[in-house]
Amino acid sequence: MLAAARKIFAEKGYDKATVRGIAAEAGVDPALVHHYFASKEGVFVAAMQFPVNPATVLPTILGGPPEQIGERLVRFLLTMTSTPEAREPIVALMRTAMVNEQAVGMLREFITEAILTRVAEALCIPPIRMEVAFAQMFGVLMMRYIVKLEPLASADTEELVEILAPTLQRYLSA
Amino acid sequence: MLAAARKIFAEKGYDKATVRGIAAEAGVDPALVHHYFASKEGVFVAAMQFPVNPATVLPTILGGPPEQIGERLVRFLLTMTSTPEAREPIVALMRTAMVNEQAVGMLREFITEAILTRVAEALCIPPIRMEVAFAQMFGVLMMRYIVKLEPLASADTEELVEILAPTLQRYLSA
Repeated sequence: MLAAARKIFAEKGYDKATVRGIAAEAGVDPALVHHYFASKEGVFVAAMQFPVNPATVLPTILGGPPEQIGERLVRFLLTMTSTPEAREPIVALMRTAMVNEQAVGMLREFITEAILTRVAEALCIPPIRMEVAFAQMFGVLMMRYIVKLEPLASADTEELVEILAPTLQRYLSA
Repeated sequence: MLAAARKIFAEKGYDKATVRGIAAEAGVDPALVHHYFASKEGVFVAAMQFPVNPATVLPTILGGPPEQIGERLVRFLLTMTSTPEAREPIVALMRTAMVNEQAVGMLREFITEAILTRVAEALCIPPIRMEVAFAQMFGVLMMRYIVKLEPLASADTEELVEILAPTLQRYLSA
């Protein structure tokens, strides 16, 4: 089922892929896909081996005190990517997306729909502020784990929270 | 000479490459390389077809009023990458670096030596603050020109300056 999902997402992109199409490709009933993965987003997260599903973690991050949203988001992203096993699938997809037009389209659609639009709407902020916040954390993770700039690559989570949280807080405050 | 330089930088990385080694590879006198490109940095910038040499533009950016350094830096980076011709070589190197260990090492050494260390020292700020500022702008340029997130990809320079300048200003203030 996950191999079928990867094929369909790669061919159609995230927006145009459907649970029905993935089920047909896998030769199973759509109800079975829904049973295992709940939604198209769940199938995507499983197919790409992401360590977490945005639909699961976002309510917790968005639900706490608004004046600490920046800190919660920075700490969550740094903790989530702290082990090589957890970040490997994300780094792999980032790498593929950089050199492959289909993959970048799929990633853009997923990020926009599953993360950016959802957070911007929940916080009532203009989408561009959420995109710039996302760019900050994406850039930090890339410089930390792929380019391995020092001292950023060896810095501990709390030092980075202190530097980054006020930035995210400003972007995400209405 | 530039083909020889690309070969030497790729093989040895930026730190270990020398003007002498590049001259030997090209079969010319080192004085000729110095005459045309002034320094190893100049050779690298020419070999990678970067639109500007950090050694040339940084004094202007760092030289103005300190309380507007964030704004100057954001506006400069957005203007420098505003045409496809100017940003193509940078995007190409970013792409290569994402999937190639040698290229990422070369890029890390160049960025650290030619940009990050120089700015951090000039502004008397901890290097990690400069790295996080760099990550912000790198992430924005990547989301704007490679991932093409909207509305970020279509936003005009002044809108982005307004959002990003306070962030850079905070990171770059001692």
